[in-house]
Amino acid sequence: MKAKVTVMLKDGVLDPQGEAVRHALSAMGFDEVEGVRQGKLIELDLAKGTTEADIVAMCEKLLANTVIESYRIEM
Amino acid sequence: MKAKVTVMLKDGVLDPQGEAVRHALSAMGFDEVEGVRQGKLIELDLAKGTTEADIVAMCEKLLANTVIESYRIEM
Repeated sequence: MKAKVTVMLKDGVLDPQGEAVRHALSAMGFDEVEGVRQGKLIELDLAKGTTEADIVAMCEKLLANTVIESYRIEM
Repeated sequence: MKAKVTVMLKDGVLDPQGEAVRHALSAMGFDEVEGVRQGKLIELDLAKGTTEADIVAMCEKLLANTVIESYRIEM
């Protein structure tokens, strides 16, 4: 079974990586880009019977820094 | 208007970052994890009237390295 975890910086947390992408796109002439936020997408291959609670534990303990990042789980 | 671009390494391309996450999860006792692939999620804030073709151009020119990465656009 598969699960997807997306990890994004919380609103209000400075995102220098996204800002660099925005700046680069603007320099390339893509003036329609008003803002960019960059996060992580983690695809997990899991054994059958893995519960959402297990994935929440993985996120809280390793995948996301919950002080500055939020995460979303799709199963 | 918003758009999301997900960029993942193509199948068959070695993903050391995902492998490191898999190893760390396994070391923490999450034995149900059989594989991990890690990619990027880029959220774009765009001016009204931006077309999907514009976003494809951004992906091809900057956001993805199409030799080793595939991308998907959600508007």
